[in-house]
Amino acid sequence: MARAQRISDDLARRQADEPAGEVAHFGPDEPLVLDAGVALSPFQIGYKTYGTLNAARSNAVLVCHALTGDQHVASDNPVTGKPGWWEIMIGPGRPVDTDRYFVICSNVLGGCMGTTGPASTNNATDQPHGLSLPLITIPDMVRAQAMLVKRLGIDSLFSVIGGSMGGMQVLQWATQYRDMVFSAMPIATAARHSAQNIALHEVGRQAIMADPEWRGGRYLIEDTRPSAGLAVARMAAHITYLSDAALHRKFGRRFQDRDAPTFSFDADFQVESYLRYQGEAFVERFDANSYLYVTRAMDYFDIAAEHDGSLAKAFAGTKTRFCVVSFTSDWLFPTAGSRAVVHALNAAGASVSFAEIESDKGHDAFLLDEPELFAITRGFLASAARARGIA
Amino acid sequence: MARAQRISDDLARRQADEPAGEVAHFGPDEPLVLDAGVALSPFQIGYKTYGTLNAARSNAVLVCHALTGDQHVASDNPVTGKPGWWEIMIGPGRPVDTDRYFVICSNVLGGCMGTTGPASTNNATDQPHGLSLPLITIPDMVRAQAMLVKRLGIDSLFSVIGGSMGGMQVLQWATQYRDMVFSAMPIATAARHSAQNIALHEVGRQAIMADPEWRGGRYLIEDTRPSAGLAVARMAAHITYLSDAALHRKFGRRFQDRDAPTFSFDADFQVESYLRYQGEAFVERFDANSYLYVTRAMDYFDIAAEHDGSLAKAFAGTKTRFCVVSFTSDWLFPTAGSRAVVHALNAAGASVSFAEIESDKGHDAFLLDEPELFAITRGFLASAARARGIA
Repeated sequence: MARAQRISDDLARRQADEPAGEVAHFGPDEPLVLDAGVALSPFQIGYKTYGTLNAARSNAVLVCHALTGDQHVASDNPVTGKPGWWEIMIGPGRPVDTDRYFVICSNVLGGCMGTTGPASTNNATDQPHGLSLPLITIPDMVRAQAMLVKRLGIDSLFSVIGGSMGGMQVLQWATQYRDMVFSAMPIATAARHSAQNIALHEVGRQAIMADPEWRGGRYLIEDTRPSAGLAVARMAAHITYLSDAALHRKFGRRFQDRDAPTFSFDADFQVESYLRYQGEAFVERFDANSYLYVTRAMDYFDIAAEHDGSLAKAFAGTKTRFCVVSFTSDWLFPTAGSRAVVHALNAAGASVSFAEIESDKGHDAFLLDEPELFAITRGFLASAARARGIA
Repeated sequence: MARAQRISDDLARRQADEPAGEVAHFGPDEPLVLDAGVALSPFQIGYKTYGTLNAARSNAVLVCHALTGDQHVASDNPVTGKPGWWEIMIGPGRPVDTDRYFVICSNVLGGCMGTTGPASTNNATDQPHGLSLPLITIPDMVRAQAMLVKRLGIDSLFSVIGGSMGGMQVLQWATQYRDMVFSAMPIATAARHSAQNIALHEVGRQAIMADPEWRGGRYLIEDTRPSAGLAVARMAAHITYLSDAALHRKFGRRFQDRDAPTFSFDADFQVESYLRYQGEAFVERFDANSYLYVTRAMDYFDIAAEHDGSLAKAFAGTKTRFCVVSFTSDWLFPTAGSRAVVHALNAAGASVSFAEIESDKGHDAFLLDEPELFAITRGFLASAARARGIA
């Protein structure tokens, strides 16, 4: 690897064991029993908090991140140096107001930013887990988060909020730990991964595993990196986060730094140049095996399957207040998936509001400047805070 | 390579120079001047014909194939042994009735089934062209087809028909050789490639070029094959040919040969197994460099750009009868793109009918059993045949 790339790689690699921010360690007395049927122990969770927990311990908001997100939701990212991924939503005076709420965000199990994942060191061998780590599921991620929340002395969360895979965790929290969840906001998500979603993830995994530098998952030990494969996976995924209209508006058929096509395989078009950049930037901050694990967790996600195929049954008797949000141009998690959740919540007699926000920005709309999303979040949390008696 | 794969590979490779079916050779006296600014000479066109040209030479139908199609439209494919790719549409008694019409289908320039492309032998070096072949455009493909049509002694085509990239060629024919086209049927296509389409193609190209076995395009000379990269490209593309609904109907979240997930990266889900098969089957019949060339030709396609940005101007004064067809669930070439063509044809005062067919089968609907498409094709051709006086 080139020197600059090596420095960036080292920086990213170190986060797997010694992340910026807080770390909660769970020893042999607190194993995590995974859906795969094995106990993970020891393990750790990297997390960040923002704001102050009130005396009643009633104002905690858990924010769940998406596929390639991390715990640095509202402060600079230690690897990229960029602002937190949801600073537009979370912070002092923001819709999730850290002057009022105590925000917790942890890196997911299987991730590469400080929570145990394939890039973390296995104490037994002093080498990275790699593919020896058992597969992780969304319920496993949520189980780990629940252990963290209890460790922080919190019995009940004021709210659980997240988009995309974060929204899957929100829904899982609301069924698995329903008594701990006062309110829940699943955004741009679904109660199960669709065949098309699984197919798109499988392409990304095959791109990584096709890269000879992947070395059967042993690249960290053998000091190679499947950068080309991971970049292709990211490029393919990135297209699914946007929309036809958004790509047309941003790039159209405009050329990059030229007036006419070069009649070559160079990045003639702006959209090609942009995509290549997305692929290159991603490999500097994300672990390829983590990408395999976390995509697989999403594929396995299907809440109804655990409840005799009935989503309504999964939510039966819930007291949680729900606010479900989707975006019109999101074709990765189309509104139909959110509607299915709303129908099930209605059938279960739950308290639920639903907003389909008009936007041409595609799936990524939940991360962008969408005033309607901010207004809805503010209103929903304010109403729930009144109901819970939060000042 | 394994022996079975090698035999299949040899079979596919031979088609590049000595295809099954007919071949038209064009020598130094008939160069093809490419949009890239160079003259291609010598070159050849592999093609097939079905039915009989009438005495008036007025019943010829040119069928244009899509990205990975070939000339074997209505008879067994010499490489795969499978039926022709559009036998449901073309043959005796079919909507394009070979008892009545003389059907011509040629492999596109840049292809790998007998028309000059990167896998063809360069006579000057006795080695495959590889990336030394200049880039090809859709107008170049059509220019070559026009030379073939003239070679066959046909001054005017009764109809030009094609879907997807085939539809692009139809639109190009109707502007570049308007006096040679009596009727035209562009299906599931657009007058230009969108930013999203370019992005999707770029992912496929990057997957191929990321494969070290691609060897900078010299894999045929160095006797390797970028099979893994080409398979990933095909898998990614294949998803775009279907629809969310079609994938759900075909596969849902069903497991492949098992009752429960394996908690591994095996193909647990049927949709994964299906996709992997699509990738593996494709690399046995298609040349990776051809994939680069032909996708690039589609990216460059933009009819209006050649006519001061006005699509209506491109069709001004046309006497061709048009029938434009799209499918509701096609998100690769959405109806909006067909509607733009129809609006331009209306503005140009052309004779045009338009059908948006209700289907959940996605882009590939044009290749599948869609009775409405067959009825429309029959009706359109019958009416045009009456107008042209074909018995």
